[in-house]
Amino acid sequence: MVVAHDSLFQFTKSILEAAGCPEKDARLGAQVLLSADLRGVDSHGVARLVGYVRLIDKNRVNTRPDVKIVHETPSTGVIDGDAGLGLVVGPEAMNLAIDKAKQVGSGWVAVRNSNHYGIAGYHAMLALKDDCIGIAMTNASPLVAPTFSKERLLGTNPIAVAIPADKEPPFVLDMATTTAANGKLEILQRKNKQAPTGWIQDASGQSTTDPNGVKDGGALLPLGGDREHGSHKGYGLSSVVDILSAVLSGANYGPWVPPFVAFMEPAADPVGKGIGHFFGAMRIDGFRPSGEFKSHMDNWIGRFRNAEPIMKGHDVLIPGDPERKLEHERRKDGIPLLDAVVNDLKGLSDRFGVEFPGEI
Amino acid sequence: MVVAHDSLFQFTKSILEAAGCPEKDARLGAQVLLSADLRGVDSHGVARLVGYVRLIDKNRVNTRPDVKIVHETPSTGVIDGDAGLGLVVGPEAMNLAIDKAKQVGSGWVAVRNSNHYGIAGYHAMLALKDDCIGIAMTNASPLVAPTFSKERLLGTNPIAVAIPADKEPPFVLDMATTTAANGKLEILQRKNKQAPTGWIQDASGQSTTDPNGVKDGGALLPLGGDREHGSHKGYGLSSVVDILSAVLSGANYGPWVPPFVAFMEPAADPVGKGIGHFFGAMRIDGFRPSGEFKSHMDNWIGRFRNAEPIMKGHDVLIPGDPERKLEHERRKDGIPLLDAVVNDLKGLSDRFGVEFPGEI
Repeated sequence: MVVAHDSLFQFTKSILEAAGCPEKDARLGAQVLLSADLRGVDSHGVARLVGYVRLIDKNRVNTRPDVKIVHETPSTGVIDGDAGLGLVVGPEAMNLAIDKAKQVGSGWVAVRNSNHYGIAGYHAMLALKDDCIGIAMTNASPLVAPTFSKERLLGTNPIAVAIPADKEPPFVLDMATTTAANGKLEILQRKNKQAPTGWIQDASGQSTTDPNGVKDGGALLPLGGDREHGSHKGYGLSSVVDILSAVLSGANYGPWVPPFVAFMEPAADPVGKGIGHFFGAMRIDGFRPSGEFKSHMDNWIGRFRNAEPIMKGHDVLIPGDPERKLEHERRKDGIPLLDAVVNDLKGLSDRFGVEFPGEI
Repeated sequence: MVVAHDSLFQFTKSILEAAGCPEKDARLGAQVLLSADLRGVDSHGVARLVGYVRLIDKNRVNTRPDVKIVHETPSTGVIDGDAGLGLVVGPEAMNLAIDKAKQVGSGWVAVRNSNHYGIAGYHAMLALKDDCIGIAMTNASPLVAPTFSKERLLGTNPIAVAIPADKEPPFVLDMATTTAANGKLEILQRKNKQAPTGWIQDASGQSTTDPNGVKDGGALLPLGGDREHGSHKGYGLSSVVDILSAVLSGANYGPWVPPFVAFMEPAADPVGKGIGHFFGAMRIDGFRPSGEFKSHMDNWIGRFRNAEPIMKGHDVLIPGDPERKLEHERRKDGIPLLDAVVNDLKGLSDRFGVEFPGEI
């Protein structure tokens, strides 16, 4: 089923309002979710709406949070999200980082007591309009095993970096610190296909190609896959994201991060509050004139895009290229939804009496 | 041959002085180089001394640089290294970042017109004494092909992050953004052994296990190895390092980065000055009380170190553990040097009339 962006946005906003969010927060939350669907990160878009509502049902998400700055210096700060939707707390924290960058050149904000914030790239890109480099990270439910570990101690802990250019579109890196995102495994499970080696390990810690390996007590592998291919680097990067997001802010870290799924209970012995995020903004002209920087970014992007390809027709891509292409298409042609997602959304439609949009 | 740390340090310092560096710079340069040898990053230690001297001979390194802040805000700045040794310019820039962190919570300094700065971890760790998180990056000679590219457009562009703990030693990540560092290939070449797949591609862009593949016109591969295993992520991270280090500072980026080896000439059409670095420091108590943070870091480190291992005897390591262990051993037992390195150092000894230390 393919649904028009605007109708799906209105539907999502209405559900969030019906679930208890103020209109402004519902609008922002819907924007963040839909940006994932537009950019092709389907696992982080409206597919998760029912998950957020379940967390609201269990009072693990507060729809009327009192988001507060609990500590700050001119260029740093910590925000307590009061258990609000990360979709709403995230942009507020990023905007504080941008304000600090406007004042003193850069701003760095760690967030505690939050929930899943959707796609990292959305938050990082908020900095672009102010000629800033934007950075966004978050920790997440433990699904990833460090190198040599049988246990899952880390989330897919993404890093997003958005960098403005002039005539070229911005450089937007948005990556999980695992070899493959969990969403890709779900697709293989649905198609009953094997996973490549280096993506997952089974419950005994051995490499497996069974796409159900993670469900069955195994783990996703850090970027690199195994020690010989640098999995200790992926593990290290994921750890930095965890520490900046949670140890710095006072959120839960490592295996204590509360699960996104409502049917699993958070740890009985939390080491902090909720999940953690980390945001940064650096004003370009805190380093060199913005015009100069952007024209060199155009030159950088042009040189890489025009690199001699290994295979004809497979040109070198700039981070953000595939997502932008998809966004352009999906704004025009609509957003494709899997049957399982349509069923979930129709369930919400029935429950809250909000009409589900028809096929485009 | 195994040489005592202190004698090798004195020798290195004396050579740098004989080559024209002021005593203070020679001392610092020797410290940075020796820290690599102590920590087991042998490719970035005294093995490179002859390379630096050759660059001085060619006037590509300025031994008496006038290092200047060319632009700054309270939390950001750009330093022009005046073509000095990166070993000396690096710590100066990192110290500026730390000073800014003391003033306004964080400091971020991009550097242009510099040269190779040794191991990234040394610079990041400078922040630890002031209860700051330290970050260091640098771009480097193009040896790495982006995903889908036949051409080498990026360096091994390392990222280092140093984070203080309390009773536990600090967390120190220091990683090239490639699957394997160039130094590992050199070892395989010497032993005439094949490389694992996923480390390098040949001149036509195909995966190869020939350890001479890079020399023969191929390239190192970004962390991930191939597209299916996330090489686009390693390529993205390496790009961020390149952009922050060089596009932000006004240094050369991508394929324009001047080669470390003196026998290769820099690009005839530079896009900036020298090579670029990027440093950051964030004061812990800009986020939460330092004692609180450090005790949670101890908890984080302890939990990960005690994770259930896949294989008995192969415990989960904390980034920085192997290097610290080696440093402890080598301070006591001396630094092992390859014959080729000893020959180079003896050549410098003869040329400058500085006695080369004997076996420990």
